[in-house]
Amino acid sequence: MGPRWKGKGSEAKALAIPISNSISNLQSSLIKSNSQAILSGCSVLLAANPEQTELLNQTCFGRPVITVDKDKQWFQFTFEEAFYLCYSLNCIKIVDSNDNVKTTNELWEYMVSKRASFCHSFKAYAHLRVKNWVVRSGCQYGVDFVAYRHHPSLVHSEYGVLVFYEGNGMNDRLRVWSDFQCTLRLCGSVAKTLLVLYVGRNGESVTGSSVSCLDGLSVDEHTITRWSPERCREDQAVVN
Amino acid sequence: MGPRWKGKGSEAKALAIPISNSISNLQSSLIKSNSQAILSGCSVLLAANPEQTELLNQTCFGRPVITVDKDKQWFQFTFEEAFYLCYSLNCIKIVDSNDNVKTTNELWEYMVSKRASFCHSFKAYAHLRVKNWVVRSGCQYGVDFVAYRHHPSLVHSEYGVLVFYEGNGMNDRLRVWSDFQCTLRLCGSVAKTLLVLYVGRNGESVTGSSVSCLDGLSVDEHTITRWSPERCREDQAVVN
Repeated sequence: MGPRWKGKGSEAKALAIPISNSISNLQSSLIKSNSQAILSGCSVLLAANPEQTELLNQTCFGRPVITVDKDKQWFQFTFEEAFYLCYSLNCIKIVDSNDNVKTTNELWEYMVSKRASFCHSFKAYAHLRVKNWVVRSGCQYGVDFVAYRHHPSLVHSEYGVLVFYEGNGMNDRLRVWSDFQCTLRLCGSVAKTLLVLYVGRNGESVTGSSVSCLDGLSVDEHTITRWSPERCREDQAVVN
Repeated sequence: MGPRWKGKGSEAKALAIPISNSISNLQSSLIKSNSQAILSGCSVLLAANPEQTELLNQTCFGRPVITVDKDKQWFQFTFEEAFYLCYSLNCIKIVDSNDNVKTTNELWEYMVSKRASFCHSFKAYAHLRVKNWVVRSGCQYGVDFVAYRHHPSLVHSEYGVLVFYEGNGMNDRLRVWSDFQCTLRLCGSVAKTLLVLYVGRNGESVTGSSVSCLDGLSVDEHTITRWSPERCREDQAVVN
């Protein structure tokens, strides 16, 4: 399944403004304004100027939050989004409620303490973001993430993503056939491919207590599709 | 969600021939012909005369099997279907490959040995069949069964059924939110309600080794639907 563009001209529009460019612009803009986001419970809040608002919307980081503050647009980031901006793109600082800047390791420890699966979930998120996929929550489709080739206004999401890792199993998914069937059928009916990311260890034992554990993790990609005998004949190349 | 009849006249057709009548007729016909089905691995085969073929199709027991045998129509039953016909409706005998009639307990032991979950799966199947629901495999939708109000040619299935039981958990389903979301979304998109049947013990400990364990099991029904704030306002009665 290739990308399903939304209407005429969407593909051309997308090609004209690659996501990678928009992310570079966002990065520069946030660095220039010395942006600080505020850690608040399980989310991270950032006040954006008009240019940044435009770029955050273009690159699908965070959700705009409606406030009484008319001068600034606030954005709410997930842990993955905030840590990606802070650690991978190195373009924002994150402060606690007392305005103290958190070090990367403090932030990491905090996020892992709030959500044990964060270590693997972030690895998977970053894995897709680095490849310029637009990554959003997959909660509507019962997966961990959905991945878009470009902005969701131009293209339907192409992948439903489940993140697996060694050990406890992040989410106890696909353990039984009925779950497999359910997930595949749902992904199929919304024209997505099911992408399973296995986040594994590169040999040495990995603990989630320090951000350096990310280097010890690898990501394997597997897409899962239904096998249809009719479509998988040996002479496919000849017939089609 | 009520029944979704397939086209005009289907509801009238269904009312004219209640499933309960067809099942009574099937029962009588099978008893009259002293029907014997053959146990073969994980399925059970029965040769049906034309009247029985019609009635089995009407009541959705088994799948017709194409054979070179022109005089008889063969049907292949699942364990649940075969045991329901044999034990609950008491209208067929089941023989092994040496033509020896299996006692109910022998049959039970065999089926449980082939599939440990059979005890609870059969309890759930019988629970729905007794109420005249037409029950088929839910494998297409990633659930254990689907339940129809009448023949699938007249009506869409109304429930996607998952069977849960105490202990190991029959199928490790709905343990995490993403599975919940996936299952609900899929059921919603195919206009079914998710019905979870909890098969539990009535006090005393139950072992699956004898068919009498069925008496010690109870079935609790729970439907699961998405809560939509817009549709669930307190003043619903007034507004609608």
